[in-house]
Amino acid sequence: MGRGGVGILREVVNRWERRAPLVPSDVQKLVKQGIPVTVQPSPRRVFADSEYRAAGALISEDLSSTSLILGVKQPSAQSILRDKSYMFFGHVIKGQQENMPLLDKCIEARVRFFDYECIADANDKRLVAFGRFAGNAGFIDCLRGIGQRLLCLGYSTPFLAAASSYMYPSLNTAKAAVIALGQEINRVGLPEGLHPMVFTFTGAGNVSLGAQEIFELLPHKWVESQDLEKELRSPTHPIIGVKAQLPDLVQRIDSSVPLSKAEYYEHPELYEPIFHKNLAKYTNVLVNGVYWDQTFPRILTKDQARHLFSVKGNLGLLFISDISCDINGSIEFLVRSSSIEDPFYIYDPLTDMVHSDMCKFLSPSCYQSS
Amino acid sequence: MGRGGVGILREVVNRWERRAPLVPSDVQKLVKQGIPVTVQPSPRRVFADSEYRAAGALISEDLSSTSLILGVKQPSAQSILRDKSYMFFGHVIKGQQENMPLLDKCIEARVRFFDYECIADANDKRLVAFGRFAGNAGFIDCLRGIGQRLLCLGYSTPFLAAASSYMYPSLNTAKAAVIALGQEINRVGLPEGLHPMVFTFTGAGNVSLGAQEIFELLPHKWVESQDLEKELRSPTHPIIGVKAQLPDLVQRIDSSVPLSKAEYYEHPELYEPIFHKNLAKYTNVLVNGVYWDQTFPRILTKDQARHLFSVKGNLGLLFISDISCDINGSIEFLVRSSSIEDPFYIYDPLTDMVHSDMCKFLSPSCYQSS
Repeated sequence: MGRGGVGILREVVNRWERRAPLVPSDVQKLVKQGIPVTVQPSPRRVFADSEYRAAGALISEDLSSTSLILGVKQPSAQSILRDKSYMFFGHVIKGQQENMPLLDKCIEARVRFFDYECIADANDKRLVAFGRFAGNAGFIDCLRGIGQRLLCLGYSTPFLAAASSYMYPSLNTAKAAVIALGQEINRVGLPEGLHPMVFTFTGAGNVSLGAQEIFELLPHKWVESQDLEKELRSPTHPIIGVKAQLPDLVQRIDSSVPLSKAEYYEHPELYEPIFHKNLAKYTNVLVNGVYWDQTFPRILTKDQARHLFSVKGNLGLLFISDISCDINGSIEFLVRSSSIEDPFYIYDPLTDMVHSDMCKFLSPSCYQSS
Repeated sequence: MGRGGVGILREVVNRWERRAPLVPSDVQKLVKQGIPVTVQPSPRRVFADSEYRAAGALISEDLSSTSLILGVKQPSAQSILRDKSYMFFGHVIKGQQENMPLLDKCIEARVRFFDYECIADANDKRLVAFGRFAGNAGFIDCLRGIGQRLLCLGYSTPFLAAASSYMYPSLNTAKAAVIALGQEINRVGLPEGLHPMVFTFTGAGNVSLGAQEIFELLPHKWVESQDLEKELRSPTHPIIGVKAQLPDLVQRIDSSVPLSKAEYYEHPELYEPIFHKNLAKYTNVLVNGVYWDQTFPRILTKDQARHLFSVKGNLGLLFISDISCDINGSIEFLVRSSSIEDPFYIYDPLTDMVHSDMCKFLSPSCYQSS
C-alpha cells in the first residue's frame, strides 16, 4: 500500500455516477488499521463528505500524498498523478477507442493500473463485476417500461406504479413497491390477452438471478419450458416465469448427437438457434442475461422479430429487458444502450426502425380509440 | 335523469386520462336507486370494467339507451349521440379553438351540454374544479424535478428518490415516500448553498393548500416573509416555507394609500410588482398557485428572471412548479405546459431559450468537473 495510504476519486464519468469504491464503514476499518484515507469532496456521491469525515478520512482535493487511488469509473486523463497506483473500471481491455488517451496517459505517467475487469480468481472467474444488484435494478426498470408500453397500447395496468430503480431510496423500498404492484395485479387482473403474462429469463449468472429475485415478488409461478403450453391452457397465476435452458435456445444441427453444454461453448457452429420457433412465441417479456460473443448464434434476430410480430402482434413479445446489453448482440435489434434519464426505446420490426417515444410504434389492430 | 339512466364514456383525450367521472361505489348507489348505469369498456380506466360490473353496471359500447352521458374530458365529436345530455370538461368556455368542432357537433346534434367548468354555487364559486389532489400531485412532481435539476448541477440529493406522482399507487404511498425523503435530508443534509432551502408558495386556493400539505411532510419550518432574512442568518431547519401574501407580490404605486385586497382585484393597475425585488431573491423553489389574468401584474417576468439569475446563479431560483399553469401568464417564461411523460423543461434567462433537457443550461460557475 505504501506510506501514503488510499485516495478516493470524485467520479466524473457522467452525472449519474454516484457510487463510491469504498463505503464509509470500510474507510473506518482502514483508518483504524493505520491506513490514512483521503477522499476528494463530491456533492454527487451517495455518501456525503461528512460521512467519510466521520469515518476518519481526510476530505481533500489533493491526492498527491496517497499511494493507491480508487475510483469506480474512468477519471479524466488530465487528473492522473505520476507514479501512483490506480484502480477503477478502465473499459480498456477490448481496446475501447474512447479510453485509449487515458491508458496512454497512465503509461506516460508511470502509473500502475489495476483494472477491476481483470481481477480474477485462480479459475479466471472475475471477482469485481456486475452482480445481483444490476439484475435487481434492471428488472425494476423493466417493470416501469412494461407499464409505459402497455399504456401506449391503451392499457392502464398496475405496472404503471413502477418507478425507475434510482427513485427508490433503498432496495427494500423498491421490493415493497413491487410487492404492492403484485397485490394490485392480483386485485384487478391483467388485460385480456395478457393473462397470464410470460416472463422468460436467459442466463444463469448473478445478473439474471438478481432479476429473478425481484420477479419472485410478483404473483408468479415458475414453469419448465416443456410444461408451458399446458400451463397456458388453464393458468393458475397471472404471471408465469420460465428459465430458458440451453435446449430452449439452440439445437444441434446434426441431431444424431445429443446436445452438450461443453461442446456448445467450444463449437457453437455445430448448433442452430430455436428460441424464435418455440419459447419466444409464448414469451411476453424477455429478460436477457446471457453471455454472448459473435461466435454464438443470436437469441433473436431482426427477421425473427418481424415474424413473431406478424403472428402475435403487440401483446406478443411486448418488452425486452436486455441486461446483458451487447449492442447488436444476442438481441440483434439492440441498436444502442439506453440511459438512466431515457431508459426505454421501441423497435419496430416492420420497418426496422427505432423510436425514442415508446408510443410511436402502434399496431392499428391493438390500439382502439373511439 | 330520464328513463335511460346514466352512461359513462371511455376517455380518449390522451393516453394518460385514466380517471372516471363516477367511481364504482357511486355507480352502485345509483343502481340501487333504480337508475341503470352503462359503462363503455376501457382497459385504461383506473377502475376495471369488472369493478363496474360488480357494482351493477352494464358494460357496453352502446350508450344509446342512456339519457345523461358523463365523461371527464372531451369525447370525440363523432361519438356524440343525438338528443342526449352530456357532462364533461369541455374546455370551450374561453372559445378554445381546438374544441369548437366538438361544440358545433353538440349544437348540431341537439345535445344538452353541462360543462363542469360552469357548475357554480350561488356565489359563482366553481364546484367542479382542480382541487387538493392537483396540488398534491404537482408538488410531488416538483420534488422529482428538483432532484433531477440538482443532479444536472452536480449534486446528488435525497430529492432524487422522488418519483412522479403517477408512479405511486396511492396518496399514502406517496406521502410515505416524501416522509422518507425528508428523513434522508435530515440525515445527510442539503448541499452547501442550499441550506436552508426556501420554498415560496403563492395562492391560497385548494391547489396551493394541496401542495403545502405535501410540503409539510418534509423537515420544514413556516416563516413569515418579514422574518425570513433573520431566519436565514441562523437556520434551524433544512427547509423553510413561506406563504407569499399580496404585500409580498405587489405594492400600491401611490403609497400614500394603504394596500387593499379588494381594491387590487378591482384596480390592479394601481399596483406594481415587487416580488422580484424582495422574496424572489431568497426563494429557491417557487410553487405558483395564484389566479391570474392579463389585468394583473406578473409575479415574475423574463427580465426579472435574468436579473435574479445574474445575482444568484443556478442555486438561486432553482425550480418553479407552476401548478396554475397560465401559459405566458403570471410566470412570463412559462412558454408551454409540460406533459406527464415529459414533466420538466428548463428556461435559460440569459438566452431566453427553453430546453427539454434539464441539463442543457448550466452556468459554468456552478458546474465543476475536474
